[in-house]
Parts: sequence; structure tokens; C-alpha cells
Amino acid sequence: MTIPRLTDAERDQALHDLPGWTLSDDGLAIEIDLEFGDFNEAFGFMTRVAIHADKADHHPEWFNVYNKVRLRLTTHDAGGLSMRDVEMAQFIDGIV
Amino acid sequence: MTIPRLTDAERDQALHDLPGWTLSDDGLAIEIDLEFGDFNEAFGFMTRVAIHADKADHHPEWFNVYNKVRLRLTTHDAGGLSMRDVEMAQFIDGIV
Repeated sequence: MTIPRLTDAERDQALHDLPGWTLSDDGLAIEIDLEFGDFNEAFGFMTRVAIHADKADHHPEWFNVYNKVRLRLTTHDAGGLSMRDVEMAQFIDGIV
Repeated sequence: MTIPRLTDAERDQALHDLPGWTLSDDGLAIEIDLEFGDFNEAFGFMTRVAIHADKADHHPEWFNVYNKVRLRLTTHDAGGLSMRDVEMAQFIDGIV
């Protein structure tokens, strides 16, 4: 089953409801840069996201160096943003 | 205490002893691309590296998407490669 891609209106609403997240340059993803106290905190956060992601079968693209984590959420099966990305962003906002 | 940077000869020897790792374009880091069976395996690997990294107080720069992990090792305090990077690469080679 194909996952429906968000309409432009849905995408704008989602971004409005997710302060801190920005639309990627290509318009296919939402991104955020997070900073933690140290590596232990950053990787602890990543571990919580990883467990959630594997359960939801929806995985982030992410980069980490020491206390910084850059996240990019997109849905390959939708060719862009879907509700899965919004739900993942909401989960992330809930734990940071 | 400053961490000594590898000499060119030491760097070449290290790269010779670490097949799969390549010198970054800027010459300041060693890099590798790894691929696992799925996200669970990839993040399991990352968790082992993270625990080791925090204990060694030497942290990788890394990017992950699903089953892929791209790693970059460098020593900021040395302004390039040091033995810490070689040791970390050896640890990583030992668990993949």
C-alpha cells in the first residue's frame, strides 16, 4: 500500500504545528538541529527515537557529532512528507 | 594536554592496516561506509560504538539512514588524525 503524501495545505499546517522544524530545500523532508548537554544525552535521545522508529517501521535520517543531532524526516514510499513524519516529529518534540 | 597528531608516515601505516577506511578529502579524518541487514542491526552497532566512545571520551561523527552508517573519525584536539582515531577504527573493525 502506498502511503499518501501530504498535500501542500497539510504540509503547511504540520510545519505550523511543529515549531523548530523546517522544510528541507528540496521540499521533501522536515529537518531539525538539536543540541544536548553532552554525547551521553544526545545518544540517549537517539536511542529513544531508534526504539520508537523501529517499532513504527519509520526511520529518521540523522547525523550526530558529540552533543549535536541533525534529523531529517521523509517518507520514501510517499515520495515526500507523510503523516508518518509528522507523528515522528511529534514524538521527538515530546521527548526533548 | 594536546593529543599528538599522526605524522604522514604514521597515517599511511594506519590506513594500510585498516582496509575499508579511507582518508577524507581534507586529509583530517578517516571514513568508512557500513551496511547492515536492517535498522535494528545498524543501531545495535551504533550503540556498541557509542558506549565505547563515551568511555574512551572520543566520539565519532556519523550519519545513519535505515541500515547504512557512515562514520568519520578525527581528533579535534590534534587538528587531524591521532592514535585515538586508529584505536576507535580498530574497535569498530572488531565488532563489524
